[in-house]
Amino acid sequence: MYTSEIKLRVRYSETDKMGYCHHSNYAQFFEMGRTELMRELGISYLDMENRGVMLPVLDLKTKFLIPAYYDDELTIKTHLKEYPGVRITFHYETFKADGTKINTAETTLAFVNAETMRPIKPPTFFLEKVQDLLA
Amino acid sequence: MYTSEIKLRVRYSETDKMGYCHHSNYAQFFEMGRTELMRELGISYLDMENRGVMLPVLDLKTKFLIPAYYDDELTIKTHLKEYPGVRITFHYETFKADGTKINTAETTLAFVNAETMRPIKPPTFFLEKVQDLLA
Amino acid sequence: MYTSEIKLRVRYSETDKMGYCHHSNYAQFFEMGRTELMRELGISYLDMENRGVMLPVLDLKTKFLIPAYYDDELTIKTHLKEYPGVRITFHYETFKADGTKINTAETTLAFVNAETMRPIKPPTFFLEKVQDLLA
Amino acid sequence: MYTSEIKLRVRYSETDKMGYCHHSNYAQFFEMGRTELMRELGISYLDMENRGVMLPVLDLKTKFLIPAYYDDELTIKTHLKEYPGVRITFHYETFKADGTKINTAETTLAFVNAETMRPIKPPTFFLEKVQDLLA
Repeated sequence: MYTSEIKLRVRYSETDKMGYCHHSNYAQFFEMGRTELMRELGISYLDMENRGVMLPVLDLKTKFLIPAYYDDELTIKTHLKEYPGVRITFHYETFKADGTKINTAETTLAFVNAETMRPIKPPTFFLEKVQDLLA
Repeated sequence: MYTSEIKLRVRYSETDKMGYCHHSNYAQFFEMGRTELMRELGISYLDMENRGVMLPVLDLKTKFLIPAYYDDELTIKTHLKEYPGVRITFHYETFKADGTKINTAETTLAFVNAETMRPIKPPTFFLEKVQDLLA
Repeated sequence: MYTSEIKLRVRYSETDKMGYCHHSNYAQFFEMGRTELMRELGISYLDMENRGVMLPVLDLKTKFLIPAYYDDELTIKTHLKEYPGVRITFHYETFKADGTKINTAETTLAFVNAETMRPIKPPTFFLEKVQDLLA
Repeated sequence: MYTSEIKLRVRYSETDKMGYCHHSNYAQFFEMGRTELMRELGISYLDMENRGVMLPVLDLKTKFLIPAYYDDELTIKTHLKEYPGVRITFHYETFKADGTKINTAETTLAFVNAETMRPIKPPTFFLEKVQDLLA
């Protein structure tokens, strides 16, 4: 398993009238998490798109344990546990600064040819990076 | 089962560089869907909050089948299938104008006392409405 | 002057911890307003982009008079007052259901060739529509 | 004049179908900028709200020079130039990593009593901090 971490602060605009960081924001945070995980592996998601490979989300599951509030500093841990096929799954955990876990999530994405929009195998350079990592 | 329908158009600001309606927006659409379902039952979500009952989301699951694009007119069908306890589950289906299903989802929310933030039973006026409906 | 109107409800996700519809949302509402104004003129913004003409925003000014709250039904009036050149200016007013004005705004956009990203004159079909309208 | 700087990366979810960081996001970035400026002054915006002082936005002006794209690292410079009265004005400049300026903006906010929602003078602790700074 490879784990990557990002930190971010809940923006005022991300709060809702309950004072919570609105639950719809976490899908954005998880996306930031997997982008940074890939960057750490030497894979720029932007480069990959420029080479004609896209990664749309097929499936998103989130369990919300407790809310985050304005200005909370959150840590998103993104885990890559399994070797990807035409699909890749990332797991996420979000923590407050004091270490309390606030939610867990899982997204499955497809490797897609940007022109044909058809599923493809992950690019070789991607698989090689991941192979080294999970070995 | 009770089903409620809303229609909305994908905003330019909701698209991403793939041209897709970004997946994080759907959590907002589903929230709009359950608000309207409740309004149809004669329950204003706003009133309920003003009476001290909040409904934070505990769990969100979405399966994305195909993407929606800018200016697409989407129909969100929100289904209430089960009588609620301290938790309530809504099911969703999103369709394009031509009837193609683009995703399905499910959210579970908790009834919470706004002051103590502790789980509570749904308000009686809420249960009565739902009882009539699912009977 | 040509005026177009849209109605929308403030989404829960658009509120912030003050309970206000967060000010960053209005730029999205104004964009919806000018899209509908153009649709009424028989101009699909989507078609125009597909023909290679884009309209990035150069300038946005908003004066916030009073806040809107969750579930408020807002009316956005979009006004086209001047014949466009390489730039086009739209004016906006946002109202509550009771007619209270809550903000006013103005955006200036450029007609841009999507390939070269250079400013261009508005497409002839666009100018003809607008000419009829403002005559 | 006091200047504060934040850095952030354009999120995928913040892009639009032109590939641009959608213009509505900048109002959020500027808010993050002024929050950090205040934090540097030893003023927590959150604390201030908890003490019953709110700062709604009255006026927002933005001039967009060139777009930002996905994964661009942006620097937001927030400037406090004038001693605040019942209103406070912040100025902003956004830069790409190579130093190119991409937009400039200005927001005016009101100090408001959170209970009465009426304009008030800035809290003394706030004025003292600012006085030291701009002296």
